[in-house]
Amino acid sequence: MTTTISRPPLNGVDTPTLFATLDAVKANPELAKFQFRATNRWVSGTNNRSSIQGFYGAGQEDTSRTEAFSYDADHPAVLVGTGKGPTPVEFVLHALAACLTAGLANIAAARGVTLTEVSSTVEGDIDLLGILGLGPVLGRSVRNGYEGIRVSFRIAGDAPDEVLRGLIDQSRSRSAVYDVITNGVPVEIDVTTG
Amino acid sequence: MTTTISRPPLNGVDTPTLFATLDAVKANPELAKFQFRATNRWVSGTNNRSSIQGFYGAGQEDTSRTEAFSYDADHPAVLVGTGKGPTPVEFVLHALAACLTAGLANIAAARGVTLTEVSSTVEGDIDLLGILGLGPVLGRSVRNGYEGIRVSFRIAGDAPDEVLRGLIDQSRSRSAVYDVITNGVPVEIDVTTG
Repeated sequence: MTTTISRPPLNGVDTPTLFATLDAVKANPELAKFQFRATNRWVSGTNNRSSIQGFYGAGQEDTSRTEAFSYDADHPAVLVGTGKGPTPVEFVLHALAACLTAGLANIAAARGVTLTEVSSTVEGDIDLLGILGLGPVLGRSVRNGYEGIRVSFRIAGDAPDEVLRGLIDQSRSRSAVYDVITNGVPVEIDVTTG
Repeated sequence: MTTTISRPPLNGVDTPTLFATLDAVKANPELAKFQFRATNRWVSGTNNRSSIQGFYGAGQEDTSRTEAFSYDADHPAVLVGTGKGPTPVEFVLHALAACLTAGLANIAAARGVTLTEVSSTVEGDIDLLGILGLGPVLGRSVRNGYEGIRVSFRIAGDAPDEVLRGLIDQSRSRSAVYDVITNGVPVEIDVTTG
């Protein structure tokens, strides 16, 4: 991959700064080490709320967000919740669509493709016998999470069909959330009580 | 597991309805088949927006949400975005904290434990050499997603330390998002162009 090509800003992407960032990171790979964070507080029942603000990256603690982003999650009434937010598993689908779409816009800009529309629908199938603990009761092996996820993209732009499809292929091959969801990540949990 | 124990509502959880739901699903396991969805639309650059509303479950299309939940995602300025929302990978951390916390509240209610506080911080370490495509350039093998995620819980309630810790253990063993993140899920992507 070369980052010496010159492209003007496109699709709302500041392509020159994107390429300059790639060059800066190549010269100092430590800049690429990031730590993202969320804090969560239980509200009541299955309702809880996360705050997302600070992160570490590019060699320092980021201070660009003057306020935290805040999101409620909950279970719907049919799952004995109060519906004050989406379910946690729905936020996973949002994260996947958002990551693939952001990458696609960057890649299109880098390749000089003007996008006119990118939309997607993400569906995840889940058998709740798993989380309800009823798999063993019913003699079935059921996982807790999604059995499978399908993403359907619609893309329009000033390039032939195969070029537009190539943007998705490249976005998938560089997507952080696609990697997390398809390959898994080790998770450590520690607890303080009292 | 038995669902015949009787418990009053606790922690904002309608425990009798929760147990009745378990019994209904045991009698008709098809009720446990759910499909969750998100739709996403590209806005500009790395900014895009998801809507979350309908889902299928308990044998029918849910209609309890009269309006869609809507969430922006974006990259921050340091990653050449406009910061109009958290990054997609931060939503993954929110989903994990939310899922573990919702499960914990249900499990505490089922076990008769009154919770007074549940809070958590989730941190994810990621080396962006992966998504920037610079791993091969620098002769390094770097994945796109998080290398590791740590969740730190603080729990307080009217039970001994080991009982409170047991709530987290059980929540983890029944968490859909923990399963998705640690074990991975197959993802299919299809594309329509033009």
